[in-house]
Amino acid sequence: MFSVTVRDHMLVAHSLKGDVFGPAQALHGATYIVDATFRGDVLDDDGILVDIARAADELRALMAGLTHRNLDDLPELAGRNTTTEVLAQHVGDRLADRVRAGALGSCVTSLEVTLHESHVARASYERSL
Amino acid sequence: MFSVTVRDHMLVAHSLKGDVFGPAQALHGATYIVDATFRGDVLDDDGILVDIARAADELRALMAGLTHRNLDDLPELAGRNTTTEVLAQHVGDRLADRVRAGALGSCVTSLEVTLHESHVARASYERSL
Amino acid sequence: MFSVTVRDHMLVAHSLKGDVFGPAQALHGATYIVDATFRGDVLDDDGILVDIARAADELRALMAGLTHRNLDDLPELAGRNTTTEVLAQHVGDRLADRVRAGALGSCVTSLEVTLHESHVARASYERSL
Amino acid sequence: MFSVTVRDHMLVAHSLKGDVFGPAQALHGATYIVDATFRGDVLDDDGILVDIARAADELRALMAGLTHRNLDDLPELAGRNTTTEVLAQHVGDRLADRVRAGALGSCVTSLEVTLHESHVARASYERSL
Amino acid sequence: MFSVTVRDHMLVAHSLKGDVFGPAQALHGATYIVDATFRGDVLDDDGILVDIARAADELRALMAGLTHRNLDDLPELAGRNTTTEVLAQHVGDRLADRVRAGALGSCVTSLEVTLHESHVARASYERSL
Amino acid sequence: MFSVTVRDHMLVAHSLKGDVFGPAQALHGATYIVDATFRGDVLDDDGILVDIARAADELRALMAGLTHRNLDDLPELAGRNTTTEVLAQHVGDRLADRVRAGALGSCVTSLEVTLHESHVARASYERSL
Repeated sequence: MFSVTVRDHMLVAHSLKGDVFGPAQALHGATYIVDATFRGDVLDDDGILVDIARAADELRALMAGLTHRNLDDLPELAGRNTTTEVLAQHVGDRLADRVRAGALGSCVTSLEVTLHESHVARASYERSL
Repeated sequence: MFSVTVRDHMLVAHSLKGDVFGPAQALHGATYIVDATFRGDVLDDDGILVDIARAADELRALMAGLTHRNLDDLPELAGRNTTTEVLAQHVGDRLADRVRAGALGSCVTSLEVTLHESHVARASYERSL
Repeated sequence: MFSVTVRDHMLVAHSLKGDVFGPAQALHGATYIVDATFRGDVLDDDGILVDIARAADELRALMAGLTHRNLDDLPELAGRNTTTEVLAQHVGDRLADRVRAGALGSCVTSLEVTLHESHVARASYERSL
Repeated sequence: MFSVTVRDHMLVAHSLKGDVFGPAQALHGATYIVDATFRGDVLDDDGILVDIARAADELRALMAGLTHRNLDDLPELAGRNTTTEVLAQHVGDRLADRVRAGALGSCVTSLEVTLHESHVARASYERSL
Repeated sequence: MFSVTVRDHMLVAHSLKGDVFGPAQALHGATYIVDATFRGDVLDDDGILVDIARAADELRALMAGLTHRNLDDLPELAGRNTTTEVLAQHVGDRLADRVRAGALGSCVTSLEVTLHESHVARASYERSL
Repeated sequence: MFSVTVRDHMLVAHSLKGDVFGPAQALHGATYIVDATFRGDVLDDDGILVDIARAADELRALMAGLTHRNLDDLPELAGRNTTTEVLAQHVGDRLADRVRAGALGSCVTSLEVTLHESHVARASYERSL
């Protein structure tokens, strides 16, 4: 199996609802370093699973819609607790939409998104296509 | 599938038994940067797989029992060669005990522990719960 | 010359005032990975410039007062644009207060604080004591 | 399951054939930071999956045959587009040959090779033995 | 003193002239991860030493003229051995031109460029303005 | 000014004398990731400050005399507290001996050695030649 990973980041504010979050219930923020990994069993005729430049462009476009925002105000995330896991899923599902729309060729069969919230914590979401 | 990873470290001395270890048969030491990854298919009602703060606390508590020790003297590791693989398994099994005891909610179905022994070598142990 | 560096982090929200900041004028956030470096020409009788554990404790205490906050609401930062440079200076000046109060021995003669706001950008502030 | 990963690197020139590669069709180059991961379900009697020193030696030997070369001129890669994915497969298949030849014990049942081409992009190839 | 650092990269081929370079006399290549650091004693009225976004743009523009090239063919580097040190100086001098042209405000008084050629080697060039 | 940095590591056991060290008074160990930085104002006729390969060789030779040891037993460190600062000085002074002996050309005028003891702590020693 092959995989290709590209990295980008977003700078966001948010708050979390629920006693479990302790001080993170207050409005705060994070830099999420985002790794998007695309997987598949075969390469295309050019010898690639996915065009790295296009994969980076797709991730950048997604980041552009989230960075420099207060996630508490984003309609697309309304009613959800924007935990690192939920954000990884959100980014992963949007990338999956793009793959299914043909934006990244036809070799990708699954993907994984990892959000690093600091040098000591990260969360991932993996799904098939 | 979701995963959450937290990082901590321990500073230990040890020696390894067996010709294969060459100079590592002598008493020496290592900083192990430890990544503990928890995995599961669903999130709880708060939108988390596991509380990152509690996961970090559990890993820190485990590290506190190992760091600043000579592993050759630890009863819990007696008779075992404390290779990076064995230590990863030891940490992983102790964390699995804590997950099964309910310390980290009910969503975690497997975990993986990675010990980085330098910038050029690491070992991991993965198991189900 | 000797130096000792310890690392911690904070998760904050803030906004920046001024056209130059473009989209960063909106409320957003960041994880700042913070490196505090202490410098001096001589070591004490124990062979240390500064006790690494105490240095880490001092940095952690400072982070505790800033993390999980909206910096726009903090009285101690009122009226200042909390750019990465300004935050580095704020953290550096607070650490300098602690060094001068004797919290980290008597060998430190200058310090530097670096805030990493992502994997591709950081800012530092260096000062004497 | 256990895994052991060792890291090395190579400095190579190459060009890529195909419109999809845009400016990378011209002769250029890359530092590939190479992580070789060996996996298996059991440890041997010494408590290791694979001898880390021997694994590092095997990877270094492979790197020695590729580094400081123009990959466009290497007979063993003739007719192939040396994309990051293809190079990961090439390195992975050569390492698999070595494992099957007994160079790394008998516990390894699969391996994965990751080539980091920059701080923001990497590709992997995983295979069984 | 304050500093701001931004990171980018370039993928280049080149060869080096001189027996000292051994195998690096052959055509090969490298990914240079490039850190550009700008330094100055005071911040402007907005609380910045330099606009991080503009600094990143300036570095990206410079990288665009070098990446995906064979440096042996670049007129601007003709007759020079493109060692990591020389390339750091080249990038640093071009950035200095841009700072002097006013592209990055008026607070920067010196700069440093670091080129990471692998995870185990890098070179820097520092100069005043 | 130019600088060149090479990285290596050592795996050592040791203990520290003095109440300030708390649990580190017991025998324990560390992986020290060691960065050796060489500085000078001019490059030689080949366009280098120092041959990176030779610099790496010199650092590796030094590491070979320290790694896989219990530093408490090393005659060359007898009577010294092997704190991270002291070890940085020890490595730095040995490298300075080698530079003065002509092993790394004639351009180096100062050097700095940084020992990373974990992902959150490091110490450095800088000296002229």
